[in-house]
Amino acid sequence: MAELPLAPVKRIIKQSGASRVSAEAVQELRDELEEYAEDRAREAKEYAQHASRTTVQESDVKASR
Amino acid sequence: MAELPLAPVKRIIKQSGASRVSAEAVQELRDELEEYAEDRAREAKEYAQHASRTTVQESDVKASR
Repeated sequence: MAELPLAPVKRIIKQSGASRVSAEAVQELRDELEEYAEDRAREAKEYAQHASRTTVQESDVKASR
Repeated sequence: MAELPLAPVKRIIKQSGASRVSAEAVQELRDELEEYAEDRAREAKEYAQHASRTTVQESDVKASR
């Protein structure tokens, strides 16, 4: 289930200097970002659990790199 | 300049099973996602240019992996 909105992803691609972007390109990058975020979130949660915390903190996200 | 909103990033972290997430953790993951998206967008644009196209297409985003 996609959480990240398409519009900001499209803006990021346009800001790279692309004059036009296909809708499928935006969707593809959004889907990949979403997957990447899910992987990182899972890892970060593991780090928090390992430290016996219930709150995921910035250090957990950094450790998940 | 941040394009990606924080709320969906927070939802993605919560969906990983984390009961609580600090605001700094959400911001950190959002910032990293943003940078990752910018890198991929730049690469994708290069691929489009190399193919003499002005439109970034799905294949350019896939090639940029």
